[in-house]
Amino acid sequence: MIRFESDYTEGAHERIIQKMVATNMEQTSGYGVDEYCARARQHIQTACGNEAVDVHFLVGGTQTNLTVISGILRPHQGVIAAITGHIAVHETGAIESTGHKILTLPSDDGKITAAQVQQLYDEHWNDVTHEHMTQPGMVYISQPTENGTIYSHAELEALYDVCQQHDLPLYIDGARMGYALASPENDLTLERIAQLCDVFYIGGTKVGALMGEAVVIVKDTLKKDFRYLMKQRGGMLAKGRILGIQFETLFEDGLYMEVAHHAVQQALRIRDAFAAQGFTFRYDSSTNQQFPIVSNEVLEKLRTKYSFSFWEKVDAQHNVIRFCTSWATQMEQVDELVHDIAKLGHACSITGQ
Amino acid sequence: MIRFESDYTEGAHERIIQKMVATNMEQTSGYGVDEYCARARQHIQTACGNEAVDVHFLVGGTQTNLTVISGILRPHQGVIAAITGHIAVHETGAIESTGHKILTLPSDDGKITAAQVQQLYDEHWNDVTHEHMTQPGMVYISQPTENGTIYSHAELEALYDVCQQHDLPLYIDGARMGYALASPENDLTLERIAQLCDVFYIGGTKVGALMGEAVVIVKDTLKKDFRYLMKQRGGMLAKGRILGIQFETLFEDGLYMEVAHHAVQQALRIRDAFAAQGFTFRYDSSTNQQFPIVSNEVLEKLRTKYSFSFWEKVDAQHNVIRFCTSWATQMEQVDELVHDIAKLGHACSITGQ
Amino acid sequence: MIRFESDYTEGAHERIIQKMVATNMEQTSGYGVDEYCARARQHIQTACGNEAVDVHFLVGGTQTNLTVISGILRPHQGVIAAITGHIAVHETGAIESTGHKILTLPSDDGKITAAQVQQLYDEHWNDVTHEHMTQPGMVYISQPTENGTIYSHAELEALYDVCQQHDLPLYIDGARMGYALASPENDLTLERIAQLCDVFYIGGTKVGALMGEAVVIVKDTLKKDFRYLMKQRGGMLAKGRILGIQFETLFEDGLYMEVAHHAVQQALRIRDAFAAQGFTFRYDSSTNQQFPIVSNEVLEKLRTKYSFSFWEKVDAQHNVIRFCTSWATQMEQVDELVHDIAKLGHACSITGQ
Amino acid sequence: MIRFESDYTEGAHERIIQKMVATNMEQTSGYGVDEYCARARQHIQTACGNEAVDVHFLVGGTQTNLTVISGILRPHQGVIAAITGHIAVHETGAIESTGHKILTLPSDDGKITAAQVQQLYDEHWNDVTHEHMTQPGMVYISQPTENGTIYSHAELEALYDVCQQHDLPLYIDGARMGYALASPENDLTLERIAQLCDVFYIGGTKVGALMGEAVVIVKDTLKKDFRYLMKQRGGMLAKGRILGIQFETLFEDGLYMEVAHHAVQQALRIRDAFAAQGFTFRYDSSTNQQFPIVSNEVLEKLRTKYSFSFWEKVDAQHNVIRFCTSWATQMEQVDELVHDIAKLGHACSITGQ
Repeated sequence: MIRFESDYTEGAHERIIQKMVATNMEQTSGYGVDEYCARARQHIQTACGNEAVDVHFLVGGTQTNLTVISGILRPHQGVIAAITGHIAVHETGAIESTGHKILTLPSDDGKITAAQVQQLYDEHWNDVTHEHMTQPGMVYISQPTENGTIYSHAELEALYDVCQQHDLPLYIDGARMGYALASPENDLTLERIAQLCDVFYIGGTKVGALMGEAVVIVKDTLKKDFRYLMKQRGGMLAKGRILGIQFETLFEDGLYMEVAHHAVQQALRIRDAFAAQGFTFRYDSSTNQQFPIVSNEVLEKLRTKYSFSFWEKVDAQHNVIRFCTSWATQMEQVDELVHDIAKLGHACSITGQ
Repeated sequence: MIRFESDYTEGAHERIIQKMVATNMEQTSGYGVDEYCARARQHIQTACGNEAVDVHFLVGGTQTNLTVISGILRPHQGVIAAITGHIAVHETGAIESTGHKILTLPSDDGKITAAQVQQLYDEHWNDVTHEHMTQPGMVYISQPTENGTIYSHAELEALYDVCQQHDLPLYIDGARMGYALASPENDLTLERIAQLCDVFYIGGTKVGALMGEAVVIVKDTLKKDFRYLMKQRGGMLAKGRILGIQFETLFEDGLYMEVAHHAVQQALRIRDAFAAQGFTFRYDSSTNQQFPIVSNEVLEKLRTKYSFSFWEKVDAQHNVIRFCTSWATQMEQVDELVHDIAKLGHACSITGQ
Repeated sequence: MIRFESDYTEGAHERIIQKMVATNMEQTSGYGVDEYCARARQHIQTACGNEAVDVHFLVGGTQTNLTVISGILRPHQGVIAAITGHIAVHETGAIESTGHKILTLPSDDGKITAAQVQQLYDEHWNDVTHEHMTQPGMVYISQPTENGTIYSHAELEALYDVCQQHDLPLYIDGARMGYALASPENDLTLERIAQLCDVFYIGGTKVGALMGEAVVIVKDTLKKDFRYLMKQRGGMLAKGRILGIQFETLFEDGLYMEVAHHAVQQALRIRDAFAAQGFTFRYDSSTNQQFPIVSNEVLEKLRTKYSFSFWEKVDAQHNVIRFCTSWATQMEQVDELVHDIAKLGHACSITGQ
Repeated sequence: MIRFESDYTEGAHERIIQKMVATNMEQTSGYGVDEYCARARQHIQTACGNEAVDVHFLVGGTQTNLTVISGILRPHQGVIAAITGHIAVHETGAIESTGHKILTLPSDDGKITAAQVQQLYDEHWNDVTHEHMTQPGMVYISQPTENGTIYSHAELEALYDVCQQHDLPLYIDGARMGYALASPENDLTLERIAQLCDVFYIGGTKVGALMGEAVVIVKDTLKKDFRYLMKQRGGMLAKGRILGIQFETLFEDGLYMEVAHHAVQQALRIRDAFAAQGFTFRYDSSTNQQFPIVSNEVLEKLRTKYSFSFWEKVDAQHNVIRFCTSWATQMEQVDELVHDIAKLGHACSITGQ
């Protein structure tokens, strides 16, 4: 079985593992105040083009999201997010468990717009009984989204503009940030992202690390006491240097983007192979997740050899499936998949009927 | 600087690191349902002498404590703990952040007694206005305690007896469980512990692992839906097999106890060295943490070469300090420390004045 | 200005006020253990045809909802509700503030169906990653709904059947329960309601009382420690007898249904007056709230003399408005309104265009 | 049975009841935006000598405490309070249920000192691992305390000085505020209290009202969005005018202090009667609660005719009991009690042995 089911099926990039081996018996202080974390912080500050940002290392995405969001909101405030957002769907109510409602906006592709946020904001404040409703307190987006789509520079700028007008901190979930930056359609940089939001995180778990997410806090008022929040929510790793070592390795000489580019290239090969056979796609993704629509027969045929995700039914005969590549995806395995797709013959895809 | 400041200053035991390297590019499912986790579970079930216990792997101790405790209690219930308990002191209010009061009992050595729990229980239920007070809902202890002391078989049995009489689940924080089992004064086994409580965890972070704690749920009614709770609290690691690999290595052939015995032996060498010079100790510890009472002068002298924790002031002239050993402590470093202690000359320790 | 904007614009029914005056200087124990509360409980048990139900008195609806719901759910569970449900819209995220997500179901009329609950339940449990999603833990409905509509006997029976099959406690928010029971279309009784759910509340605030809601707990496992929950959430009134006095008065000889019938009759007179002029309605309500669709001109004309709620825009020219009657609505005021409606002339209502 | 067990055994002061009767059928807007609330607010602003304070009306004390405190603190912060404070003992963990630890300070008489707060603050910030501990975020005191004692002007000034130095908002629970102001030992005014804290509440429930507490927010940064918080926590009464009517009556012409003085005078008569017989007291109270120490025999004798609270055992032979007076205490009943105390004969009180 060749696995394309997710971007966390392997361990860590070889260079990370090597560095962990090499430094294993060194003695460092715990809880993220060691030199590896310090250097990793500097590398990330440099990559963000801003020495003033605070950088903290947490272990996982759900933990990061709940720690950041509950640290920003007051009790009566909620977080605006796409109805497809990870926090809204796949975190077992983690945000609500910290006391906050998610104010969901409809979205087909995983993105939300500046106009949607403006409208929700206006509807809240124009309602004379607004005190009886959860007050919008911040905005959450994912880059790339859970559907592989990405915000363009113009879209993010417009969104942040609305956020700033209304004092709504903008938070970007970058669990797969590298794969967005590596997309051929991307027109953003990490530096620009750090200018167009208030806090975001750079995902390690899905981009080469064993585990770990780097929170970057841009806005000064959000920096205060973040380490308390990390500790309280169980996100301060005792042997914090493990996270420092990983992010140092990923950011000291461009490894992060190197592995991201690799994954995206492989994903686009898979995309192109499906497209060449006339298959259509659920989402227009240029990142490491691809969502072809396949018939039941194709699905069964592919399943005999490959592991991938079933995403949703389109109709009785068709399905959306997800292929996911990563830093660890081997070109030979993609070769094989591409070869097998070519043999599937021309698709009678849903939109072609 | 030779570091005895904590038991998490190094990475992981060599055999763990080797296994992580060897398995790095294998593809497994995420979230703890891989084969490494499965085998680690079986080893732990065997070690506990009970195939029916549920075993889950989380990343850290605070995370584990808050997940277990908030999963057991109803909203109006609190957890009974020693006033020195880790949850009461050093977790930034993590338990309270999930909505629950900690009902603290006085303790000088870190332990609580069956009689104390009985009394607190009686006082609550005998009060006619008990509905105006937090209801005791479970009991938390640490083995060994934060002060290095351990519960004897008789003490634990008595405590669990009271807990069972009053339907108070007993939870043992075993962040350093191995070091208790390796104590020369210990008369408990992992099997017996699994019979004398309802849920406990076996600490990995401080006993040879990079990170990771293994929750063992004994009582059937506490097993339901634990994976939801883990996910919600941010404690379900995406690459869960990292935890499985570590606990498999620690439990497949006795490595866990091997490293624990090493650490305790080194700690006792340090203890004996201080004792030989007439120093007294704040706590009667037979585990990997030692708490000698030293004068200001001795403290300063030791500080020039060794790193250790300042624990508390005894009086203007004396201090409690903590030396901590671990699986990683090197005998040569302890040799050196023992040698240096011997050179300190006879202590004018606080109790000798 | 004649007010039809809500059903809580006046104080309490005259007989309640009289009883409060008559008993004012009596000395009773606090916190709901007085004789007035005891008798009120008995009257409600009798009205429910079940001496075994527990009855508790709280002050307001939001308080009641958050206390009941957070007392039932485990941390990872959510409550299923119509997207229009009061808890989902108008309680400032009170349910989320206790840590729980509301799993909303689409609804146009305010009701949800057995089939919808079944589907949501199936979708959750059929998803292999269900542990990453909030688990459905109970069901919330309102009777009548926030839109004035009511569940029929058959609908409620079907819903409760699904709930029981899946161990989902069914909770009915009866803030306006009397007005449902007084509807000409109603085919339920309080006794039958007490058989077709696990817990519900009988609203006092909107049906003749100064304040107060009577929680009726039918299911045995939900009864435990409810008074602790009330106290913790701030819902245990010190001078609890005030609530007892009110519910005793409302239930000792049928006053509750008497006032409810009065309100519904007045509402139906308003409905009929609008209908007679060809106006249509947003919801098919047979209870004390009526939602006619009126043009901008009609809205402005009515506003000069009457106070009512603006509900929502239909289009640029038309609006939904809400008229609300209560136990306190005076027939003469309805006479006047009916007279004025008749003078509006025939409506060019939205659906008539 | 003559009841001295609490200060909430009767309904409301006659003038309040009369006003509720007189205004019963008036139509007003709900949720505290009516004219009665507006006038009550103005009266209280005047009484506080500060037109800029925000005034909100909630129903009960626990509700008020949890709403105010959870509205001020960030997630990792706790509230400093006496170990005897109402929030620490008698609110079923309401503060913890909102996510916050109570940082308790020892207290024998119910008060805490500026020095204690300074010390706790210093200990927190001087600890290098302070991020692992709950951060002190505000201070809670009661005036009068739960033991009937009061803060002097100098004590409150010193406390507030420390609070301001360290940016710790000071909150005063004034459930019995009137009785403190009416104490012969009091040297504070409402105006001065409003200058020496950031937020406080003026209790109505125990000082003449049916229910109701008036929150006074002095500090500007704490004013924002308080109505959202009230609604979310279930503390925004639908028929809010009931609270307005009561506080208007209490504050429009001095009724609040009139009833408070009456209660304190009666309490001091009881105190003097016990003292005249040589009884000693557990607390040095000059307010409406008195805590004489009596032998088992005296306790039993008094119990045959009077209802009062058992407070605590002193030793096998002696007990602390509590007598409570209120706005409603009748002089004739105190006459009778005083007469009966005189007949008890001279006490062999605990301290006289």
